[in-house]
Amino acid sequence: MTRTVIESKTKTVVIGFDEPFCVIGERINPTGRKALARELEAGDFSTVEKDALEQVACGAMILDVNAGVVYNSNPNPNLTEPPLMTSMIRLIQALVDVPLCIDSSVPAALEAGLAAAEGRPLLNSVTGEEDRLELILPLVKKYNVPVVAISNDDTGISMDPDVRFAVAKKIVQRAADFGIPAHDIVVDPLVMPVGALGDAGRQVFTLVHRLRTELGVNTTCGASNISFGLPQRHGINSAFLPMAIAAGMTSAIMNPVRPVEMEAIRAANFLMNHDANGSEWIKFSRVLDAVAEGMPFPEASKAQASSSGRAGGRTGGRRARG
Amino acid sequence: MTRTVIESKTKTVVIGFDEPFCVIGERINPTGRKALARELEAGDFSTVEKDALEQVACGAMILDVNAGVVYNSNPNPNLTEPPLMTSMIRLIQALVDVPLCIDSSVPAALEAGLAAAEGRPLLNSVTGEEDRLELILPLVKKYNVPVVAISNDDTGISMDPDVRFAVAKKIVQRAADFGIPAHDIVVDPLVMPVGALGDAGRQVFTLVHRLRTELGVNTTCGASNISFGLPQRHGINSAFLPMAIAAGMTSAIMNPVRPVEMEAIRAANFLMNHDANGSEWIKFSRVLDAVAEGMPFPEASKAQASSSGRAGGRTGGRRARG
Repeated sequence: MTRTVIESKTKTVVIGFDEPFCVIGERINPTGRKALARELEAGDFSTVEKDALEQVACGAMILDVNAGVVYNSNPNPNLTEPPLMTSMIRLIQALVDVPLCIDSSVPAALEAGLAAAEGRPLLNSVTGEEDRLELILPLVKKYNVPVVAISNDDTGISMDPDVRFAVAKKIVQRAADFGIPAHDIVVDPLVMPVGALGDAGRQVFTLVHRLRTELGVNTTCGASNISFGLPQRHGINSAFLPMAIAAGMTSAIMNPVRPVEMEAIRAANFLMNHDANGSEWIKFSRVLDAVAEGMPFPEASKAQASSSGRAGGRTGGRRARG
Repeated sequence: MTRTVIESKTKTVVIGFDEPFCVIGERINPTGRKALARELEAGDFSTVEKDALEQVACGAMILDVNAGVVYNSNPNPNLTEPPLMTSMIRLIQALVDVPLCIDSSVPAALEAGLAAAEGRPLLNSVTGEEDRLELILPLVKKYNVPVVAISNDDTGISMDPDVRFAVAKKIVQRAADFGIPAHDIVVDPLVMPVGALGDAGRQVFTLVHRLRTELGVNTTCGASNISFGLPQRHGINSAFLPMAIAAGMTSAIMNPVRPVEMEAIRAANFLMNHDANGSEWIKFSRVLDAVAEGMPFPEASKAQASSSGRAGGRTGGRRARG
């Protein structure tokens, strides 16, 4: 039974076939968020703090941290991103106790993140591109961390799911050459927008099943990509997530500050028999009751967490070791 | 490729592996609806009319018709139910053009319904009980109609999904003895409440897959039973339906006048590549927009249907033969 273990200083999260779906909060990322990028360049971390606290309150079990700002004052991310990653990770670790996912395309920023992170973070990401394999897998081995493997290679992203499966298989094999076990590889099979490719959903369901049964790996995805360009996106996302979970998907990098998607995931956990006696669902139903009465989702989630006596966030709290 | 063909006088609906999920509207049923039961005994069909029109507007592709009233004036349903079934079917056929599902535990009411219904209705239901097999299968054969097969037998409803599969297999075999093909059997594997049985969801997903791959039959269920007794039931239902669809479920008997569940089904159709170019989703998104602005779902659905020039209801219209 495949288990990917990710840790902060005090908490352990397991991504696994017999575990509740792992929600990795995607918000702490300046890509496409100009206001956040400006704040970070100016040394203002107030949005990062808010995003960290809100995401954990709403149910994120891991926080993705991306420091990919292109500074106006210095356009070389190889110089600016590593120290920013270090600062952000230190700040977030002081605020919340969930494990982190270190997200960068700059190897020096990944290494800075690995040095700053306590516990056993998730590294995001390696691809099937030759230069990435040669740069990232040694880091994965050196720090003994799990890694997200994205199924594109030097030829780009294939529209053919069999090619994407073959790329994932190659990454798992190359990782094995470095002594990295399959249970430390979390494959992202790449989710295409269903508005552009009608078979996008079925491709993912089939790929997830194959990755799980043939390669024995956990899986993740950028879930909201499925609904790119469509109206009423949350309706698509909140059907996609349960379907992907039923097919065997074990985590997603997503926005947890959305009650519709989080409701779908919590219901799917219950329906997969990963919520004993529905106790998590019943607690969450009180959050939904409060949201229906007009309370914003993060506030309703915080109120429920503190009434349960778990100020660190429901999910983090449930997984506390001590 | 299994196809179950159901027809009204003018419209054909196909339940099938490569078809959009078939929504069978459950509302026209006095069981547990005391006000409706009183109306029917008094010869008042106003609620039946409203339920027929609203369900079709909201996306029901077939309407279930159940005349199971126990009259205060005459407590023998063998006498009262057949003529009531006839009246209700005639009334509904004059109002809407979708096919019907004739639903009774009284064989004479089923036969009255079969005689009154135009086209090729769905019969609801036979079970694995010996007396039901002997009574219902000859009717199915005589009228050449498809039938819902519920997977319980003389020993009751088994908690063991393998037993429920075996009952379904027995019904398919007995039907074959009567010359009824498997594609005219729509199996209900029986959905247990997940609040009482944690494995209820996974049981259904596994059973649906087996029924489809091993017996080649279409499937249906009383979808809302999954959430019986739980808070925020619609959240459970609207995750269950996409998961069941991903597992291969092809229809459900359900309340279509619920935007949350219908949104989940329409999104799942798109994600299964059963909504070419997302055109049905895009139309439905306008209904959701109107609901978000405060319009009741049936009115919003009617407005969208008439703006598309299809007054008979979207789904019915799409499936018109002529």
